[in-house]
Amino acid sequence: MPTTTIEETSYTPQGRFLLEIIYDGSGYSGWQIQPHRVAVQEVMQKTLTRLYGGKSIHLIGSSRTDAGVHALGFAASYLYPDFPRIPAEKVMAALNRLMPSDIRIASIREVPMEFHTRYDALGKAYTYVLNLGADSPFTARYSWRPGRPLDPEKIKEGAKHLVGTYDFSSFVVERSLIDDAVRTIYRIDVQQFGQYLCVTFVGNGFLYKMIRCLMGTLEAVGAGKILPEKVAVIRDAKDRTKAPETAPPHGLFLDKVFFDPAERESFRLTGVPFFR
Amino acid sequence: MPTTTIEETSYTPQGRFLLEIIYDGSGYSGWQIQPHRVAVQEVMQKTLTRLYGGKSIHLIGSSRTDAGVHALGFAASYLYPDFPRIPAEKVMAALNRLMPSDIRIASIREVPMEFHTRYDALGKAYTYVLNLGADSPFTARYSWRPGRPLDPEKIKEGAKHLVGTYDFSSFVVERSLIDDAVRTIYRIDVQQFGQYLCVTFVGNGFLYKMIRCLMGTLEAVGAGKILPEKVAVIRDAKDRTKAPETAPPHGLFLDKVFFDPAERESFRLTGVPFFR
Repeated sequence: MPTTTIEETSYTPQGRFLLEIIYDGSGYSGWQIQPHRVAVQEVMQKTLTRLYGGKSIHLIGSSRTDAGVHALGFAASYLYPDFPRIPAEKVMAALNRLMPSDIRIASIREVPMEFHTRYDALGKAYTYVLNLGADSPFTARYSWRPGRPLDPEKIKEGAKHLVGTYDFSSFVVERSLIDDAVRTIYRIDVQQFGQYLCVTFVGNGFLYKMIRCLMGTLEAVGAGKILPEKVAVIRDAKDRTKAPETAPPHGLFLDKVFFDPAERESFRLTGVPFFR
Repeated sequence: MPTTTIEETSYTPQGRFLLEIIYDGSGYSGWQIQPHRVAVQEVMQKTLTRLYGGKSIHLIGSSRTDAGVHALGFAASYLYPDFPRIPAEKVMAALNRLMPSDIRIASIREVPMEFHTRYDALGKAYTYVLNLGADSPFTARYSWRPGRPLDPEKIKEGAKHLVGTYDFSSFVVERSLIDDAVRTIYRIDVQQFGQYLCVTFVGNGFLYKMIRCLMGTLEAVGAGKILPEKVAVIRDAKDRTKAPETAPPHGLFLDKVFFDPAERESFRLTGVPFFR
């Protein structure tokens, strides 16, 4: 067996808890701690540190999420100390009581100490929500209303050219910061619930702002500005300047991080993510 | 015909527009201008004044709404000047472009100059939203989750004792400030949409915090703390101290202000107010 190094803690770790986190990203800089803005990670770590009597708790998240992006199943784990010993369900109840109402823990479970939230993930599902109907103050933070008519059938057609294993360099921001832009998209589901069109991307991993870049292109396809077949041309150009504008962050939801292949296969969105 | 006095303006009024307004009350002190907090009225008046080239526009609202209360059909009207002359649909488009995304105009129409938004209203519909399921960061601002199991059938039973013409002194805050607490509730509809229980009150008018007081009582009935029949006893006591706590503001929506009896009769909620 290979040697596994786990992160350092200021206490002797006794085990690891994996949390599934729901949050409204409207008020945050995203998951990751950034200067001058409040991050979801920061709020959670402060609450955990308080819960463990001042022991400094560090969360390892499954990814960064941009400012304004929401989550229904963000994954983060931490090494818990031997003292105070708090059972999983009590940690979840305490976090849900102490944190602001825009962050909630959906589940918690014990995982091996050497588990890594990022490296052990087998993929993720993201949903981008488009509002095809009237503007609403209640869903403006959770959907993008492009303001021009969109044809869902054209979006479905265009999306077909994005399923598979490709170099997604045309759909990434700051390409120079990453070595390899090859990723696999297993499935793109386009479903309409009332006036909301939900585009769900299931893949092995996504590049920086990749879904928002893909969505910007699919929106242009839906609006008839680009033919569906043109998506393959943009994809093969491996050049960001060939693709339309990036879609705004507030329509995007991280649905789920998969640690099990069966779960990745069976995942289906059953309604608009912000309404359940 | 009786003489009608209309409010004074710093310009010669040429007509009156009636607006139907949707807003997310989370970030406001309510409709009415209050010191130290931003009111929906203030945001709208500033935008209208800007639109009319600095002419000071005053809106007459159909009611006050408390801080945190939302609206799907708040009514407000104003006297418009002769210059600049802006057609109704252009006023609506401009307001929707210039105002923050948590306030939207749903409709606009010309009404007689002597029309009064408050005195000419024939009634109102309000919906209170209870979350009977899991907590959600996306609906926490738009529903109340009492945190104890509620039986919708008991709430329906209890609500029957509130339909009719009564002195509602048991369900008002600051009773001493009003002359007369007699109001008529025409109908109370209790409908469940997914995990949300919507209680819709249609009446000729409502007292200060009346729906929130009624809802506090119905929640206690739903939780089994008070028998449904007890609602009639509390009602007849005409004493606020006999009723349970007032429900929080964030679950409350002003659905509609009625200026037409047929509209009042036919009004039905067809889904959770914040999701359409």
